[in-house]
Amino acid sequence: MADTGWPGCTKSLKGVILDLCGVLYDSGEGDGVAIPGSVEAVKRLKESDLQLRFCTNETQATREKFVAKLQRLGFDISVSEVFPPAPAAIAVLKERGLRPHLLVHDGLLPEFDAVDKTNPNCVIIGDAAENFSYQNLNEAFRVLIGLEKPVLFSLGQGRYYKETDGLKLDVGVYMKALEYACDLKAEVIGKPSPTFFQSVLSDMGLKPHETLMIGDDLVNDVGGAQYCGMKGVQVRTGKYRPSDERHPTVIADATVDNLAHAVDAILGQRGCSA
Amino acid sequence: MADTGWPGCTKSLKGVILDLCGVLYDSGEGDGVAIPGSVEAVKRLKESDLQLRFCTNETQATREKFVAKLQRLGFDISVSEVFPPAPAAIAVLKERGLRPHLLVHDGLLPEFDAVDKTNPNCVIIGDAAENFSYQNLNEAFRVLIGLEKPVLFSLGQGRYYKETDGLKLDVGVYMKALEYACDLKAEVIGKPSPTFFQSVLSDMGLKPHETLMIGDDLVNDVGGAQYCGMKGVQVRTGKYRPSDERHPTVIADATVDNLAHAVDAILGQRGCSA
Repeated sequence: MADTGWPGCTKSLKGVILDLCGVLYDSGEGDGVAIPGSVEAVKRLKESDLQLRFCTNETQATREKFVAKLQRLGFDISVSEVFPPAPAAIAVLKERGLRPHLLVHDGLLPEFDAVDKTNPNCVIIGDAAENFSYQNLNEAFRVLIGLEKPVLFSLGQGRYYKETDGLKLDVGVYMKALEYACDLKAEVIGKPSPTFFQSVLSDMGLKPHETLMIGDDLVNDVGGAQYCGMKGVQVRTGKYRPSDERHPTVIADATVDNLAHAVDAILGQRGCSA
Repeated sequence: MADTGWPGCTKSLKGVILDLCGVLYDSGEGDGVAIPGSVEAVKRLKESDLQLRFCTNETQATREKFVAKLQRLGFDISVSEVFPPAPAAIAVLKERGLRPHLLVHDGLLPEFDAVDKTNPNCVIIGDAAENFSYQNLNEAFRVLIGLEKPVLFSLGQGRYYKETDGLKLDVGVYMKALEYACDLKAEVIGKPSPTFFQSVLSDMGLKPHETLMIGDDLVNDVGGAQYCGMKGVQVRTGKYRPSDERHPTVIADATVDNLAHAVDAILGQRGCSA
């Protein structure tokens, strides 16, 4: 009889997708801090026969700068393994001939250097943090309300995240604000968008049932992955809250203390089955 | 046969409630500007046999300062005739023993001078304008998320309003933002809350069917008044947009070019019936 519970369900895995912030490290001043055991856990996954990718809604820096930060924290990660929303958004703009007005973090702007932003016919918001001023939100609103068919892209839809000095509002909160202001529905690029998860699976050449997602965000990481047919495991680090384990609709395939414990269980199981 | 259409329906009126911003004046730098014909229109209503009150979601100034501004614009209005959300909110706080964390315009703070704000157990947001910074919204969020039973009061739920230099986001947009961040439903104090309209009717000693509301906001003025059993008329000034006349759910009893036209029609009709 097949073992469909945790960690038996991981025997047939071919790939693992990891969220970054809250799983590998906690963000905050400077580079933030690595979560204990996570550097070693990533190393062990890389040395295994599993494919590994990193799927993040991080939009405060270019992919290059972001990966450099992770490397400084001690992680063996390269740019081509990391999937953030901005490159996916640029692909959508190209496909649909759209020119964005950007309300994003200063650190993300270089990603859009080559994108035509004249006479904008859509708005893109990311985790703009301090750039979410009243004035900047008004500007984005005026662009949208002035369009015949307003199009709003949101790079993720998170409610809040944890920095070393406390919880901070995430892009989803401002997405809801502009949705209400303009009476429209935003298009989310990033987790939990199935299109976004699918692009990572395509890159690995794997099917959903062969893949496991590990994240700290129950709805966007775990629920998003499960919706696509993957397994979803939540770690009790980052933005995890005990109430997540009593969520009315999303039930993780497993909840583990941290990434190191998750990797122990996965690799231990594979050791047994080898 | 009774004439239930406009303006025949006004024959049996005993009172009129006017919205202020967008009906009497357009806000903007300094005091803003009176809408042509509105000073005279208010004067004529006051000289008639109709009761007159002003019902506003204005929360950028104390009632005293706000009325002083209207007087400078030429309007014959006194403080006791004007109903804004802040005094109604203070009554609710008192009744329920709540201590607010305030995210409001600096100009409104004096209204709350006598209110206990230590160790807050609820959040009140008003049209804070420039005070809707990322930092201030984070602070309000952290108060809410830290409460066992988070309570959020929103002074109005408007989407946007018109100033002389363009459309600006209103408090409802930030209400939706915090609702999403904390997974809660705000309590609206101000239009279109039936409790709020009822307090104005009580002050006049009139029943809803004896009263007409005139506003520029189709949903909050017209729809809110109609929901309470009053007639609701929209003016084509202020935040009015032509698409309001094709709204899927709210249909004004009449749409008129401006307040002067509305008053002409009402008083003309009463002249005929006299």
